[in-house]
Amino acid sequence: MKAMEEKILKEGEVFPGNILKVTSFLNHRIDVEFLMEMGKDIAAHFASSKPDKILTVEASGIAIAIAAASVLKVPVVFAKKHAGKNMTGDLYGAKVHSYTHGNDALITVEKKYLSKGEKVLIIDDFLAIGNAVNGLMDICTQAGAETVGVSAAIEKGFQNGGDSLRSKGIDVYSLAIIDSMDDGVINFRA
Amino acid sequence: MKAMEEKILKEGEVFPGNILKVTSFLNHRIDVEFLMEMGKDIAAHFASSKPDKILTVEASGIAIAIAAASVLKVPVVFAKKHAGKNMTGDLYGAKVHSYTHGNDALITVEKKYLSKGEKVLIIDDFLAIGNAVNGLMDICTQAGAETVGVSAAIEKGFQNGGDSLRSKGIDVYSLAIIDSMDDGVINFRA
Repeated sequence: MKAMEEKILKEGEVFPGNILKVTSFLNHRIDVEFLMEMGKDIAAHFASSKPDKILTVEASGIAIAIAAASVLKVPVVFAKKHAGKNMTGDLYGAKVHSYTHGNDALITVEKKYLSKGEKVLIIDDFLAIGNAVNGLMDICTQAGAETVGVSAAIEKGFQNGGDSLRSKGIDVYSLAIIDSMDDGVINFRA
Repeated sequence: MKAMEEKILKEGEVFPGNILKVTSFLNHRIDVEFLMEMGKDIAAHFASSKPDKILTVEASGIAIAIAAASVLKVPVVFAKKHAGKNMTGDLYGAKVHSYTHGNDALITVEKKYLSKGEKVLIIDDFLAIGNAVNGLMDICTQAGAETVGVSAAIEKGFQNGGDSLRSKGIDVYSLAIIDSMDDGVINFRA
């Protein structure tokens, strides 16, 4: 999605440790008009896979999942990182290391919200090493659901999470793939 | 919003301690079609207030904020409960007690995403005692922004957060107001 590359070049900020900050339009302030364009683009790619459900993880994945789901007309389930008093059912869980927060989190989904045989599209804001996506796929496997695809707003191609999934035959669609961002210079995959 | 009351009666579950669980359509699984109707209803109420921005707090507020923002055509800013490495700017902050999680959280917004004189509509999934909303309003005050209204999907009227705001002249619009839920019986405000 050319518009995503342009948005990253215009508004993204690179910090040491290969941190790309896109808080101006995606994960703190959300440019909702642009978000809906992102959703349309993801939905167009995966329409033929006919997902029954979109699965993401709180918090930053929720917005883009909603945008795609509003076009595909399917529900969203967001895995919880911080289970509260309102999580009372039987749970699927997976341990996920957060690159941004530097800790491990147990992400959970109530069993009744993922069913055997369902086609699931996994969406997140970032795809880097792939920890969150692998955790969500693990949860799908536990449920007997099928991951029909993975989509990210921004893939850090140099961290290989996306390519590792592609090598397993998974349809991975990222709106922009960054192949390097050394010295603050962002290069996208051709 | 009559449809919200019907949805709560059909799908909501009441647990001891006045916990209303709406994970089937709002804060774990999201019924996106219904969410968009919620957004339209909130947008219709606040269109004449001409908000410049919608402010919410991660995670469960994000979806409904996006739905309303997509109609009002304004950006969303979501306050962070868990600041990560990508939060590098100067911050506004407010301490908020979570009823669901039983702890205090510091919610933060980067200063550059809230400006003096901006008209802000605050949206959250639940309005009970009003801790989260009061924290968000405090942040608006710090920024010199004006809170033009407060909206919640579900207000627990018996916990008085909404009425306390109304008594201060704030336009509080909740899609459903529950006045009691003793013994699992939900009564809405007439």
